[in-house]
Amino acid sequence: MTASFRIEIRVVPRRGILDPQGKAVADALHSLGFPEVGDVRVGRHVVVETRAADAAEAGRRAAEMCEKLLANPVTEDFEIEQVVPV
Amino acid sequence: MTASFRIEIRVVPRRGILDPQGKAVADALHSLGFPEVGDVRVGRHVVVETRAADAAEAGRRAAEMCEKLLANPVTEDFEIEQVVPV
Repeated sequence: MTASFRIEIRVVPRRGILDPQGKAVADALHSLGFPEVGDVRVGRHVVVETRAADAAEAGRRAAEMCEKLLANPVTEDFEIEQVVPV
Repeated sequence: MTASFRIEIRVVPRRGILDPQGKAVADALHSLGFPEVGDVRVGRHVVVETRAADAAEAGRRAAEMCEKLLANPVTEDFEIEQVVPV
């Protein structure tokens, strides 16, 4: 028996790693009238719909997905934000 | 007087909008030993460090940033996930 889950995963560049996309966004925000903005970092938000025996197993499998594919272990950190039954 | 805040923003493709990157990730996960995975959507996670009078104002300004630059109003939804004093 398995149940359906929606897993929300955040993958962001590590602090101290150069993030050119974040720098470009910060510059654009300054030009658009947001001078108060400082550092910006841009990562990915991944929503995975999957099946598992329970929420704990779904979370474990999602962490494996991050290690194998979704996150670059050298430059990025990942976090399983939520495991929601659907 | 202003204070520093870190704002966490999620931008994801709307449901029903074709997401080729999500489809590619789902296919790759199937090949890598995750056959249980169904739909995958890939969006962006943006971390903005900024200054504002208070958390409510920081959140309002962040929503404006999404409307003007960070999210495509036609194809994407955004959510201000957190406004954290730093």
